[in-house]
Amino acid sequence: MRAALKEAEKARKIDEVPVGCVIVYNDKIIARGHNLKEKKKQAILHAEIVAIQKACKKLDTWCLDECDIYVTLEPCMMCTGSIILSRFRNLYYGTPDPKGGCTDSLIQIKQIKGLNHHPNVHSGILQQECSEILTSFFREKRKKPKKDKSQFKVNL
Amino acid sequence: MRAALKEAEKARKIDEVPVGCVIVYNDKIIARGHNLKEKKKQAILHAEIVAIQKACKKLDTWCLDECDIYVTLEPCMMCTGSIILSRFRNLYYGTPDPKGGCTDSLIQIKQIKGLNHHPNVHSGILQQECSEILTSFFREKRKKPKKDKSQFKVNL
Repeated sequence: MRAALKEAEKARKIDEVPVGCVIVYNDKIIARGHNLKEKKKQAILHAEIVAIQKACKKLDTWCLDECDIYVTLEPCMMCTGSIILSRFRNLYYGTPDPKGGCTDSLIQIKQIKGLNHHPNVHSGILQQECSEILTSFFREKRKKPKKDKSQFKVNL
Repeated sequence: MRAALKEAEKARKIDEVPVGCVIVYNDKIIARGHNLKEKKKQAILHAEIVAIQKACKKLDTWCLDECDIYVTLEPCMMCTGSIILSRFRNLYYGTPDPKGGCTDSLIQIKQIKGLNHHPNVHSGILQQECSEILTSFFREKRKKPKKDKSQFKVNL
């Protein structure tokens, strides 16, 4: 999760909502990603999607069932879905997202019986640091003139 | 939806689960996509994700709030999330997916109050044709030896 936090820091430096992600296979980090939504003008380019694309290329398979994914923020609906589709063994996340999280917050995936895969979910990993980087980012945004912060009115 | 069905046919021809998608802006199709999961070895490359990437590039924005998305099959959790994140105005889909659909089947997005955007959802558009292309694809798969169909054991 320390490595995922470093990724979140990269996002913060380019004025993206600071969320970071790494993917681990055989005890090694094989892919890293941070949020690139604004830079690449793609709402789908959350940290998890960026890292999953890299991991699939690296392992030459869509099936990441021997991999674990670490992300600083509870995944949204899209990213939770992508983690299920990619068959991750374990999902570790830092801080919950009561407004958009779809692993345990808005949706509790363990309650959805029809899903064809359920990763093991571990939450609260380095929660304070994962939360603080987001809180301080939005605190800074609120200090800036409205024009600059308009893009962050809505959730990630 | 006829154009989305043509995309599904393209997927079928390359032995992918036949799902197709188009995105409409100002009464014109600006992006097309079909399922490329097996070909590109990326579980995230569903028809919707492929088309959304193209539409964002074309319009040079992540915010597709003046666009409508047409897809032959009810979107999965990942794709439903990506449609919400990209702020689509309308989602039109062909046939429901009781095993993996997360717009109305496994999850009913209109029941989730915390989401920061809700597209208008229209289902059952050319439902019979959208269903038939999938049914006939899996019927053919079942005829083939087990070795060939192993990759389709699990849901899309």
